[in-house]
Amino acid sequence: MENDIAIGVDLGGTNIRAAVVGGEGKILRKLKASSAGDPIRALAGMVAELRGQYPGVRGVGLGTAGLVDRRGLRVIHSPNIPALTGRSFRSLNLGLPLVVENDANAAALGERWMGAGREFQDFVLFTLGTGIGGGIVQGGRLLGVAAEVGHMVIERDGERCSCGNNGCLEQYAAARAIVQWLVREVEGGRESLLLETMGGRLHGATARDVAGAAREGDPLAREALRRAGRALGVGIANMVNLLAPEAVILTGGLVGAWDIYVEEAVREASRRSMPGLFEGLRILPSALGADDAGVLGAAALVLENA
Amino acid sequence: MENDIAIGVDLGGTNIRAAVVGGEGKILRKLKASSAGDPIRALAGMVAELRGQYPGVRGVGLGTAGLVDRRGLRVIHSPNIPALTGRSFRSLNLGLPLVVENDANAAALGERWMGAGREFQDFVLFTLGTGIGGGIVQGGRLLGVAAEVGHMVIERDGERCSCGNNGCLEQYAAARAIVQWLVREVEGGRESLLLETMGGRLHGATARDVAGAAREGDPLAREALRRAGRALGVGIANMVNLLAPEAVILTGGLVGAWDIYVEEAVREASRRSMPGLFEGLRILPSALGADDAGVLGAAALVLENA
Repeated sequence: MENDIAIGVDLGGTNIRAAVVGGEGKILRKLKASSAGDPIRALAGMVAELRGQYPGVRGVGLGTAGLVDRRGLRVIHSPNIPALTGRSFRSLNLGLPLVVENDANAAALGERWMGAGREFQDFVLFTLGTGIGGGIVQGGRLLGVAAEVGHMVIERDGERCSCGNNGCLEQYAAARAIVQWLVREVEGGRESLLLETMGGRLHGATARDVAGAAREGDPLAREALRRAGRALGVGIANMVNLLAPEAVILTGGLVGAWDIYVEEAVREASRRSMPGLFEGLRILPSALGADDAGVLGAAALVLENA
Repeated sequence: MENDIAIGVDLGGTNIRAAVVGGEGKILRKLKASSAGDPIRALAGMVAELRGQYPGVRGVGLGTAGLVDRRGLRVIHSPNIPALTGRSFRSLNLGLPLVVENDANAAALGERWMGAGREFQDFVLFTLGTGIGGGIVQGGRLLGVAAEVGHMVIERDGERCSCGNNGCLEQYAAARAIVQWLVREVEGGRESLLLETMGGRLHGATARDVAGAAREGDPLAREALRRAGRALGVGIANMVNLLAPEAVILTGGLVGAWDIYVEEAVREASRRSMPGLFEGLRILPSALGADDAGVLGAAALVLENA
């Protein structure tokens, strides 16, 4: 089994991560680079470097932002990293078998393999950052489905979403939506510590910034997170009523505001889930950092198929 | 394989159906009785009668209304047939292996085995009647999950649902909701053919009655179905964005209004589904009648596990 190693790549956020992963889930070597510019070219370079160091790798697993054409090794649509829309990975000519999956799906598989999902056969992962992604594990295996939990409508006549739909969960519960709400409130005359922290440029705030301000007691940031948490609770209840999972695993920058954002979500989900489905449910944070969940899951796609 | 027969029971609607089903999906004998009174006692009698005629049956598969505890052979919660809430089937002492599933899940398995789902590995079934149920087939197999598609929130501050939640799909797209809307409009002074057809008792109208009035050109019934169809389209888009199925299969009394209700739903779902996910999707009616889908699927639960 010495040969049982694969490269996992996570092309989901502002950084590209690539790692060589052993069959036991050990990360042997890890690289990180910015995804600005041409992310596909950057990842090809990283893969070549890792392969030079570990010539025995079985293949490359890639978790990418956007909606994925698994057979065509292609990104159909990527609202968050538009440069990826329509791009194919086939032309990379890596000289290795390549498996492509959505980045949140890969993170779910990583959590299942080595993280908070190890003890569950059935769970839903929510990635809570600028936008909201998801992954579904059923019967111990990743469902190879869209799992776009952030693009589930929770308010049918609600705000227009970048995906073309109206009233998506992401429009109410993700960091981008939270910051937009904060900006409107501050423009309307309310005060927030965050305005100082951000040197007046509130638009640039991330999930981590808002969570930090809330932890420091900023009332407006706390209100924003409570509102967003209630929306997240609607999304969690929908997944509970659909899939009755054993667990909901939460990851991403907003999880740093667990005691406000997540606890509000848990309350709302409890009220809205069908009687009998919420009682045994565990809602817990991911066990792997954002650095590791994606690359581990992406590598697992190769090692599972080996 | 002569012995490969099972009893399938469908305890989902106003009638109980029980059938002896052969391993090739042939219905050998079928019984039907009202579910008014004590439905569990009635089904025990039907099973005993069928078993007397076919002593070689392997077991009994039961599709029941409500949220099901599969291991406990119990109904956790049944808003539509309240008499079933909390009831256990274990005490029936049928003397045969018993498998319990939700009725819409059983219908989905029936469609997968012998109906419109035969050609699909991945589909979602919506049962569109007084309420809305669902079943999910993934990788050719029924997912043993709640699949309560009717209790997915599409309007978070919307109307209170019998399940305790607010703004469930069922509150906008099912026959009960359609009739309530019609009643309000007629009370507000609008006219409907349906009022005559129903002898003034609009409250008693079923999905079939509304669909019939719409086909006869009743403008108010048509408007009601278009409104409901738009809501159904939101629910379909949510399932498309979550599960990217190959097909959505629709069954139940409202399917009789295909050219109004369903076509409106298709338009809305098309607008709301993520780019790339709707193009290949088939939306089609069930191929099995309500009489057969449930009993076939329930029997399949036993024959699959044999």
